[in-house]
Amino acid sequence: MLLPHVLLTPGPLTTSLATRTAMLKDWGSWDGDFNALTASVCADLLAIANGQATHCCIPLQGSGTFAVEAAIGTLVPKQGKLLVLANGAYGERMANIAKVMGRELSVLCWADGVPVDVAAVAAALQADAAITHVGVIHCETATGLLNPLAQIAAVVAAAGRELIVDAMSSFGALDIDLATMPICAVIAASGKCLEGVPGMGFVIAKKSAIENASGNSASLALDLADQYAYLQRTGQWRFTPPTHVVAALRAAIDQYQLEGGRAVRLARYQANANALIDALSRAGLQLFLAPELQAPIILTFHAPAHADYRFITFYNAMRERGFVLYPGKLTAVETFRVGCIGAIDAATLQQAAHAIVDVLIELGWL
Amino acid sequence: MLLPHVLLTPGPLTTSLATRTAMLKDWGSWDGDFNALTASVCADLLAIANGQATHCCIPLQGSGTFAVEAAIGTLVPKQGKLLVLANGAYGERMANIAKVMGRELSVLCWADGVPVDVAAVAAALQADAAITHVGVIHCETATGLLNPLAQIAAVVAAAGRELIVDAMSSFGALDIDLATMPICAVIAASGKCLEGVPGMGFVIAKKSAIENASGNSASLALDLADQYAYLQRTGQWRFTPPTHVVAALRAAIDQYQLEGGRAVRLARYQANANALIDALSRAGLQLFLAPELQAPIILTFHAPAHADYRFITFYNAMRERGFVLYPGKLTAVETFRVGCIGAIDAATLQQAAHAIVDVLIELGWL
Repeated sequence: MLLPHVLLTPGPLTTSLATRTAMLKDWGSWDGDFNALTASVCADLLAIANGQATHCCIPLQGSGTFAVEAAIGTLVPKQGKLLVLANGAYGERMANIAKVMGRELSVLCWADGVPVDVAAVAAALQADAAITHVGVIHCETATGLLNPLAQIAAVVAAAGRELIVDAMSSFGALDIDLATMPICAVIAASGKCLEGVPGMGFVIAKKSAIENASGNSASLALDLADQYAYLQRTGQWRFTPPTHVVAALRAAIDQYQLEGGRAVRLARYQANANALIDALSRAGLQLFLAPELQAPIILTFHAPAHADYRFITFYNAMRERGFVLYPGKLTAVETFRVGCIGAIDAATLQQAAHAIVDVLIELGWL
Repeated sequence: MLLPHVLLTPGPLTTSLATRTAMLKDWGSWDGDFNALTASVCADLLAIANGQATHCCIPLQGSGTFAVEAAIGTLVPKQGKLLVLANGAYGERMANIAKVMGRELSVLCWADGVPVDVAAVAAALQADAAITHVGVIHCETATGLLNPLAQIAAVVAAAGRELIVDAMSSFGALDIDLATMPICAVIAASGKCLEGVPGMGFVIAKKSAIENASGNSASLALDLADQYAYLQRTGQWRFTPPTHVVAALRAAIDQYQLEGGRAVRLARYQANANALIDALSRAGLQLFLAPELQAPIILTFHAPAHADYRFITFYNAMRERGFVLYPGKLTAVETFRVGCIGAIDAATLQQAAHAIVDVLIELGWL
């Protein structure tokens, strides 16, 4: 394939030329123009979550996982206890982060593809008064499952605890309304549904929580309270920011707003997902999740039931056709994943579906 | 100024168009092509430090400070003790990192502009058997001072301790030879003398040290032992890499090699520094450091001795002329800093010197 590959992955993803060309300028990190860029990005991210009245947006260098670790390390006090609701690899990663940093931890697990059960969450909170915070993955990238965020938030708030949401693959597309959902912090990154390039995360945290979080973090680099205080005082990031990544995110948000914002972006992703699901279902390939649990972000399909199936062979053949797929992340079942996000539309997903069917037939697996 | 500003800062800096246009392609982080990109960048960084026989290169998402924290948290065991040699803001930051993460810490301080005294280091190591590791800043960006790395390394090795070097603003230009200098780890970043864009750091660590460091880190995101093991096993970064930043660094290293490598890059920076020092000395502006202590990376000048001098006024006037300067970082003396690094040569520094003199005369301060 001579044309650039289309990335059908959960990020890094295919970005627009306008987003990439925004990286052609060098910025001074001490300069007023760059401070204004940071401020405008943070203000727009806060507005996307409808958190202007109560929350603040704190950008952080690194990948999304760095921002998850920063949020837990900063917001959960050293004497606090975190309950993680896990139904996939990213829930397990959040629990692992808390474990490695030595925070008190409890984990409620569900099998892959089973959504969080809010009654069980309520019972767990009632049974353990030591739990101060609850952590959950909004859209579990391991399967593409959408957890019932509004209900989880309501149950956690009713029990008087604080909720930390890893919204890495949902922010900007799925509904997160901080004016109506009681959420302490939402964590996401530049290179997902906002369609920027990877290299920075951000945490949208309750101002009251972040202002009380000074001294919690056992990390200098990942201390969000310190990052926020410095940003407030100087307009600058504490340590060298990924200037080109921030500029690309600014351009990506401009396009997001021009496209029509969250509802329009979600509709495009839903059309992408529908195009793929329709075409692959007709060819006999089945979604792993029940349709009502499947977010239109990343789709998990059962691999063809053929003894010779190998993902890497399938991957390489698809790559020659111009499409980069994503491996499954489930241990018990053979699956592959296809991302629906990025600067792509249903026409691209229709082409991808044709290529998938062609390739699997050629390999003799369908 | 209609042309892009020239960044005379210690990073982010002015990069070449070839480096920036390398960011126009999207990369899949799971893809073989991107794994090869990562491997080639790491191999070349290792070769620049002449560490192929003994060391490995571990890339890390985030700014250089993230890599410093990762190196200390991973290489200094929880029962270890770090002695930091500090003669400026970055030495103090390294000490602060160790303090925040709760490592046992001792700090030897010198005033700004006074280089590390190796006899004092030897005495401190002899006096405290608990010290396992020594940390030092190679080129202290706060002043631009070059610390005597070879001598420090020899003294630390003679005392049987391990040396961790923050080489953020020296790596790729000043001499760091791991085949002859006994150094445990060297830390640097993409956006300094290698002339990439900011967004990733890297640690060049002794393989034996990193292989024994499993379980030391109280951070998942900043655990270099885990990052290295995963990279060895899969060819991939553990968490989403800043793909465009890595591609830009690859292009920057290509240009570095084409230019002639470290000696030629250092000669260009030295010519840049000389051009600026000559012109500003003639106008009566003085270097803060004695010439033999001054690395040709970032120069600290005394501000003009005028009661009305304000850096921000000077900065804004210089910005209108097309040059972005850097503020001083000394508490006791009024200074400003000028970076000599980036994709610029002596002709640019000559122009900058003319603009500095013009502006200071116009403002009535010279």
